[in-house]
Amino acid sequence: MCVLGTGLIGGSLLRAAAAGGYRAWGYNRSAPGAQAARADGFDVESDIAAVLSRAAADDALIVLAVPMPAIDTVLADVKTFAPDCPLTDVVSVKEPVRAEVHRQELGARYVGGHPMAGTAESGWAASSPDLFRDAAWAVGVDPGTRAEPWHRVARLALDCGAIVVPVLADEHDRAVARISHLPHVLAEALAVAGAAGGDLALGLAAGSFRDGTRVAATAPELVRAICEPNAAALTEAIDDALRLLEAARDSLRDEGTLGELIDAGYSERDRYDTLRRWDITDIRPGDQDWLERLRDAGRRGGVIRSLD
Amino acid sequence: MCVLGTGLIGGSLLRAAAAGGYRAWGYNRSAPGAQAARADGFDVESDIAAVLSRAAADDALIVLAVPMPAIDTVLADVKTFAPDCPLTDVVSVKEPVRAEVHRQELGARYVGGHPMAGTAESGWAASSPDLFRDAAWAVGVDPGTRAEPWHRVARLALDCGAIVVPVLADEHDRAVARISHLPHVLAEALAVAGAAGGDLALGLAAGSFRDGTRVAATAPELVRAICEPNAAALTEAIDDALRLLEAARDSLRDEGTLGELIDAGYSERDRYDTLRRWDITDIRPGDQDWLERLRDAGRRGGVIRSLD
Repeated sequence: MCVLGTGLIGGSLLRAAAAGGYRAWGYNRSAPGAQAARADGFDVESDIAAVLSRAAADDALIVLAVPMPAIDTVLADVKTFAPDCPLTDVVSVKEPVRAEVHRQELGARYVGGHPMAGTAESGWAASSPDLFRDAAWAVGVDPGTRAEPWHRVARLALDCGAIVVPVLADEHDRAVARISHLPHVLAEALAVAGAAGGDLALGLAAGSFRDGTRVAATAPELVRAICEPNAAALTEAIDDALRLLEAARDSLRDEGTLGELIDAGYSERDRYDTLRRWDITDIRPGDQDWLERLRDAGRRGGVIRSLD
Repeated sequence: MCVLGTGLIGGSLLRAAAAGGYRAWGYNRSAPGAQAARADGFDVESDIAAVLSRAAADDALIVLAVPMPAIDTVLADVKTFAPDCPLTDVVSVKEPVRAEVHRQELGARYVGGHPMAGTAESGWAASSPDLFRDAAWAVGVDPGTRAEPWHRVARLALDCGAIVVPVLADEHDRAVARISHLPHVLAEALAVAGAAGGDLALGLAAGSFRDGTRVAATAPELVRAICEPNAAALTEAIDDALRLLEAARDSLRDEGTLGELIDAGYSERDRYDTLRRWDITDIRPGDQDWLERLRDAGRRGGVIRSLD
């Protein structure tokens, strides 16, 4: 397995795969970045031609673990040095990556992926082999996906300790706009609106402010790289939040009550807390209509915990 | 010390005061609630006349630890049975409590208080003597406050392990609207907007959604009792958040970028993370202009860690 990019996610993937018995190596564009990984005993270079030629020779699964803005450049290198390898990615949006993969005619063995894990930290230094333990890992089931690379990608996710959620690229992007990108935007707004109260307000801040702004400590360029490629779906999610907040504001201002928002929020948080994932056990990659069946199962909360 | 109301905050206060060597007893309006506290070895009754008569006989510090909607009723009992005792409260808004205290002519020995601590749980069963450890505890310095009850209230906060923040009632209310009540409102909106993505979205949700909606698990009636008495200041805080979110939404929709919000949010979260409280050591209750001087120090981030 060959990881392109050894930051928080790529680095954790390299560690998890190595721990799981994979022959795994990687690329980091900066020499000090590659050196940091080598110092920890991992096989990471900053010569992408060498790294990808080795992948081509081994038919290794290539994992794109660079931020969205760097995807086109890295895909051009894949196209040059290892165009026939199975290919996946761990980028936070799926439709833009998929579009670029197909534009560069690398779609034949591509399967989109997105492990739902992270921390406010970034870089190799923050990476951990346990980052994906019990995390959901979205794996693409878009039309035309082939069974063989799909099996390898799902296998990697499971071997990293994650749970596979089969999903279409555009449905993934609309979902993460709501449960990953919107939380970032609200955290930033809370940090700004809270700090507008000055040192007195910040000095009184306790758990609700601390937790509500936690992800605002993420590096700004990373937040933008995560959220902005998903502009259409995120705009819609922000619009929904604005409608809810405007209704609560109007009701509070005019009638002194926050209205329906409080009961609705409590009820939906409870739905999240009590969500039961169920196991997909009767669909194997390559079966008749397997992509449609996995897509439908994923929509209904189904997950894959084993491929045996 | 006499606590009226033995839920999460009042119960924790009773435990902390008892652990700190106070002779402490309490009142809970429900017989099973009082029984639960007694079963844990605490002196709690549901006969308010008896509890308050004892406070009057001992010149005990009375702490109002009931939700805002019950304050007027409990104050009427204080007026009847213990009108001359020093009096404080732990309610999440200060101006409405202060107004009601003065309306019932109980202002002579009243000092407002608000420990900035809590959990999503509630009730005696969730109470802990360590709840206030290292928490900020707002103590009122409004004009007319007397030194003797102020000293007793600040002493109690310190004895519970908290740090005293001197603050005017209305400045407190505007500050907590931003760092306590707004986080609740945004968490509720996030829970609803996130869950609108269905089980697929909730199944993909990870840390950012979990932390961003944590306080939405608080009982709805408690959230309303905390936020709605602060309607004017909270309306203003929601308006601020709406302006920030609208600007980000417009920028994302029209130009594909979240604009200034991300850098501003990062910077303000960093300001919160690196906030240095400084110790007020040169102002004693009863000194010349002590109330104004404590007010000014609190506005600039000053706190009291010791009264000796």
